[in-house]
Amino acid sequence: MSFRASILTLYPEMFPGPLGVSLAGRALERGDFALETVQIRDFGVGRHRMVDDTPSGGGAGMVMRSDVVAAALDHAAPEADTRPRILMSPRGRPLTQERVRELAAGEGAVIVCGRFEGVDERVIAGRGLEEISIGDYILSGGEVGALVLLDAVVRLLPGVMGNAVSGDAESFEGGLLEHPHYTRPAEWEGRTIPPVLTSGDHGAVARWRHDEAERLTRERRPDLLPGKSR
Amino acid sequence: MSFRASILTLYPEMFPGPLGVSLAGRALERGDFALETVQIRDFGVGRHRMVDDTPSGGGAGMVMRSDVVAAALDHAAPEADTRPRILMSPRGRPLTQERVRELAAGEGAVIVCGRFEGVDERVIAGRGLEEISIGDYILSGGEVGALVLLDAVVRLLPGVMGNAVSGDAESFEGGLLEHPHYTRPAEWEGRTIPPVLTSGDHGAVARWRHDEAERLTRERRPDLLPGKSR
Repeated sequence: MSFRASILTLYPEMFPGPLGVSLAGRALERGDFALETVQIRDFGVGRHRMVDDTPSGGGAGMVMRSDVVAAALDHAAPEADTRPRILMSPRGRPLTQERVRELAAGEGAVIVCGRFEGVDERVIAGRGLEEISIGDYILSGGEVGALVLLDAVVRLLPGVMGNAVSGDAESFEGGLLEHPHYTRPAEWEGRTIPPVLTSGDHGAVARWRHDEAERLTRERRPDLLPGKSR
Repeated sequence: MSFRASILTLYPEMFPGPLGVSLAGRALERGDFALETVQIRDFGVGRHRMVDDTPSGGGAGMVMRSDVVAAALDHAAPEADTRPRILMSPRGRPLTQERVRELAAGEGAVIVCGRFEGVDERVIAGRGLEEISIGDYILSGGEVGALVLLDAVVRLLPGVMGNAVSGDAESFEGGLLEHPHYTRPAEWEGRTIPPVLTSGDHGAVARWRHDEAERLTRERRPDLLPGKSR
């Protein structure tokens, strides 16, 4: 059975969005993965289908109601559905390529896209939602985060990339940032390609790439170097 | 003059995508910001409009040509255009809310969406591209990253959010993850709201929220705590 994503959102029209284009779009058409959206408002309370209310204890913004989110979740993924239940949230654990690989190896994901101030804590606990953050910045809602998560997952699904790109090896290999790339033309605006890359000496090329990857990582992301765990 | 984004991509149909919906969509319609796409392939080489070539030194994948990317850049943003020139790239410095705020205070951004293995290093240097990463995971291309960056920026632009949400204060305030939220109903599936939140004691509510924010940050993101700089 192929990877199946169910997305709970107030903005189903945001999907498939970029996932409907290019490699992901063709994979979606072929059925290499499936994507359904669930409109949370359909599970809203009362005649006005309210999905949020003011925060207990006061403060700005609105909070998504536990009963509403739970009803949408139970509809999208009954108890027997063993897919991970994810809440996109700036409070979550940072998304890593390792978690992306795990998700891609599984049967899918049920993703709640938070909006407003946040989601009532009780549904996070009561439905065992895994909070995932895509980075330390604030988005208008979880939808763009869900697109990022799914884009990262989908490209790893069997059959999606073919030989079009080189899969999982290109970045963060050995925990380092990637070395610089060069291609034709040999000279551009007076800038040339480092001679080692056209030397034909494969060992020297590999050493140069490793050294450059290390240098870039030290300059830009010393937190990724061994012994500097986050 | 309002914020103006120019996006260089092989997939212009991915835009505005989610930025055409909800708050961002209405802001776009009102002209609170502008978004144009530039098809990189229009600047490709030869009859087949080639945009990429094999990497110097060998290896998998393809590299975007410096001359092609530069031509697209120079078309979108002539030298007098002082907007920052950004390349979405897993090698970049991680996007922060601080950089988002700076960008939102400026006149716009020119964003190159990388694809394939990467972009020829010489155009990165030659056009002074600022490499930005949205997180430590691998995407199919820079497009989804550009959507994330712009979503984060657009919500901070004057007039975009109105009073609909509470702006920049809700997450990472004081460098901590946000405290848990609760709203009606008072009881859900046997779970109640912490009594302090309905006590009416504003000082106690503020202390509880601060303590919870600290606890969550310690549990999930000790790297954000003071003295644990990345």
